[in-house]
Amino acid sequence: MKNYTHINDIDNINSWIEEAKALKKNPLQDIELGKNKTLALLFFNASLRTRLSTQKAALNLGMDTIVMNVSGDAWGIEFEDGTVMNGTTAEHVKEAAAVVSQYCDVIAIRAFPTLTDKERDKNEVVLNSFIKYASVPIVNMESATSHPLQGFTDAISISENKTKKKPKVVLSWAPHIKALPHAVGNSFVQAMQKMDVEFVIANPEGYNLDPKITKETPIYHNQEEALKDADFVYAKNWSSYDEYGKVLKTDLDWMITNKKIGDAKFMHCLPVRRNVVVADEVLDGENSLVIEQSNNRTFAAQLVLKKILENL
Amino acid sequence: MKNYTHINDIDNINSWIEEAKALKKNPLQDIELGKNKTLALLFFNASLRTRLSTQKAALNLGMDTIVMNVSGDAWGIEFEDGTVMNGTTAEHVKEAAAVVSQYCDVIAIRAFPTLTDKERDKNEVVLNSFIKYASVPIVNMESATSHPLQGFTDAISISENKTKKKPKVVLSWAPHIKALPHAVGNSFVQAMQKMDVEFVIANPEGYNLDPKITKETPIYHNQEEALKDADFVYAKNWSSYDEYGKVLKTDLDWMITNKKIGDAKFMHCLPVRRNVVVADEVLDGENSLVIEQSNNRTFAAQLVLKKILENL
Amino acid sequence: MKNYTHINDIDNINSWIEEAKALKKNPLQDIELGKNKTLALLFFNASLRTRLSTQKAALNLGMDTIVMNVSGDAWGIEFEDGTVMNGTTAEHVKEAAAVVSQYCDVIAIRAFPTLTDKERDKNEVVLNSFIKYASVPIVNMESATSHPLQGFTDAISISENKTKKKPKVVLSWAPHIKALPHAVGNSFVQAMQKMDVEFVIANPEGYNLDPKITKETPIYHNQEEALKDADFVYAKNWSSYDEYGKVLKTDLDWMITNKKIGDAKFMHCLPVRRNVVVADEVLDGENSLVIEQSNNRTFAAQLVLKKILENL
Repeated sequence: MKNYTHINDIDNINSWIEEAKALKKNPLQDIELGKNKTLALLFFNASLRTRLSTQKAALNLGMDTIVMNVSGDAWGIEFEDGTVMNGTTAEHVKEAAAVVSQYCDVIAIRAFPTLTDKERDKNEVVLNSFIKYASVPIVNMESATSHPLQGFTDAISISENKTKKKPKVVLSWAPHIKALPHAVGNSFVQAMQKMDVEFVIANPEGYNLDPKITKETPIYHNQEEALKDADFVYAKNWSSYDEYGKVLKTDLDWMITNKKIGDAKFMHCLPVRRNVVVADEVLDGENSLVIEQSNNRTFAAQLVLKKILENL
Repeated sequence: MKNYTHINDIDNINSWIEEAKALKKNPLQDIELGKNKTLALLFFNASLRTRLSTQKAALNLGMDTIVMNVSGDAWGIEFEDGTVMNGTTAEHVKEAAAVVSQYCDVIAIRAFPTLTDKERDKNEVVLNSFIKYASVPIVNMESATSHPLQGFTDAISISENKTKKKPKVVLSWAPHIKALPHAVGNSFVQAMQKMDVEFVIANPEGYNLDPKITKETPIYHNQEEALKDADFVYAKNWSSYDEYGKVLKTDLDWMITNKKIGDAKFMHCLPVRRNVVVADEVLDGENSLVIEQSNNRTFAAQLVLKKILENL
Repeated sequence: MKNYTHINDIDNINSWIEEAKALKKNPLQDIELGKNKTLALLFFNASLRTRLSTQKAALNLGMDTIVMNVSGDAWGIEFEDGTVMNGTTAEHVKEAAAVVSQYCDVIAIRAFPTLTDKERDKNEVVLNSFIKYASVPIVNMESATSHPLQGFTDAISISENKTKKKPKVVLSWAPHIKALPHAVGNSFVQAMQKMDVEFVIANPEGYNLDPKITKETPIYHNQEEALKDADFVYAKNWSSYDEYGKVLKTDLDWMITNKKIGDAKFMHCLPVRRNVVVADEVLDGENSLVIEQSNNRTFAAQLVLKKILENL
């Protein structure tokens, strides 16, 4: 594997899950593999879990890490071709990506969508520019449309916690006050489509994800119906895809409660707004997997980095 | 020892001082102790000495470090229970603390007081939330009411520089233009109360520290009287505790000068505003211990981390 | 060598170039040299290449690194002597430099000029204060008037790419919309003056660099004439030195194009504004050395750190 930028970079999700579980049992088994190799983590946006778990994964592999907040630490970066750069951007990604490639062995990058320019977001301008102009492998730490480290993490967590061969997994849209990206939802959908689960999506009308991603996955606009007999309920807000980036609904009737999910395991990528996305009773209850999910972030990232290092 | 959050976590200050001095003589003696262990340093506020010395202490123990400015790098954190999180905070400390615990072996945290909400500050909401919800040891890198790494450092510095069995130590309030926390003053008071010194406090009327902390320690409102025959003068500004967070006095008549302290050693935790808190002549003179104090920050932090690592 | 703050700290540029090339061939040859030594990187200004390449250089030497954005992470620093610090600065450089010296073995520092206070910039107040008050070696990562890691890098790059014994090297001013420092231009001039090259400078009238730096180097105000038969063209904008910090000219007639430079190799320190300083066709063409230059930043920094470590 060269880059890890999309769930489709996972060639066999079941074998990856088993490999990640093995790393979790023995995190330091490959401590020599990354010796004298450097991972650069470039953040265009805020991060807690991704920032820390990806660093921890690199440390478990014996790698050195260099972290940079691109906005703030460095220069405004230009992504358009042929621009006369007489505005606010001071460095073109052609140079930035090529330059950073020379100081490290792998580049991990986080760059959220605009949520205003649908074409630019769909084209993954930032991520794809780095892929194009960097000379080292790229890891996606959440791009405009995709969060494949999270999607893989979620697959691991479901595998660890399932109590039947083919559990029912529901991805439910949940309320939020701000316009949020589709990346986590997209990657979760794509991960579930690769797993042996009964998978459905619940979201209000006007909130369907990109049909090129949801494909044949059933979409319910009735949350209660979708949640029936669920084994896992994954809550996540996203803004409208059709009315791109718009918040169409802010009332709390889609908030996840104990009554709604019954005995199902509750999942969320975090950060989560309590009593907006999900009630305290769910997060503080025994069926919440959110902390365990965040723990698995380390081993998802570690397996990805391991596969990249083995291929350098 | 699990957490180090208060001077009272020091079970025997004299033996701790001797152990810290031993580390200072041979900083790398425990370089294997922290191997493959990670310290996360979380900053809600600015830091120079604490940031660098705590990292250095961890490196001396062979630990890896991950540094994060919580405000800026990550999400606004909510500390109140039961809130409907539809405002500016995006993640609850319940999740944040539990999550970070999974990526590191020890969490060090800096979070200053509000200086407007006395109850919240007294309750150490941020620090105590991390203690409550984290699953790994917590080190206090200055909280709302306490700076125990500084207090322990100061005890080491006095022990190293005393020329008589029971020196006289004076903590003197000094002027400043801004409202400053009580944390350094509080921890210094508590450290001195554990040492074999003659200890008094000097501050203007209206500036008494929390009486639950000062206890039986004599408080003078006449600086000259308090400073008489002092062996060590520790200068520090703090805002009013009674009129909580208020600046009642900005004239410079309490500024420390050579004339005031005579042959006493001068101490300050730094950063210090020259010619406001203390005159140039004192800081640039032979009796200033401020640089040596800052050097001892490394070994205070190193001993604390060592004791935590030994107990993991 | 104690400090590396100016091109004049290079005692023999040809032997340094050969040593740097040897490090480039075998970057990990001195991986034991910096073991348990710490480099502090202090940034008063933004940085991409310098930030990453200097960290990488330190890692190649086995050093630990601690990075700090002084503005933001720490306190406002005062540089004037004798000030009553009742304004926005909270810590004097006398303390800051002495304190940081105790937590690390080498301090690298970036501090741009004011471009408004010529005397202050000429006096290198920030850099020289650190040199004066620190007790460990100082490396200049670009100061008010000098960028000697870049200048040395450029000398390496010219040495690697020259195809004749004494190539013609032209430093050409180029357009920009903002007022930029003179540091890169100055250090490049000083590096070229030490090399066996035919070196000339081209800049519009009013844009001559400090004559104490350019000395006998020919200065052309006719760009075309200067570029004739050039083997290397180094483009760089700077603001006026005579009308200090002023931008006198923003039209693009001095922009570097393929037609202007012909077969000459193109150099720039980056970041570069495309189609303002230089046309896309040049940067994307075969004669651009800019990415290779940035790669050499690592080995320039590594040699400097190596020489400092050998002398500790």
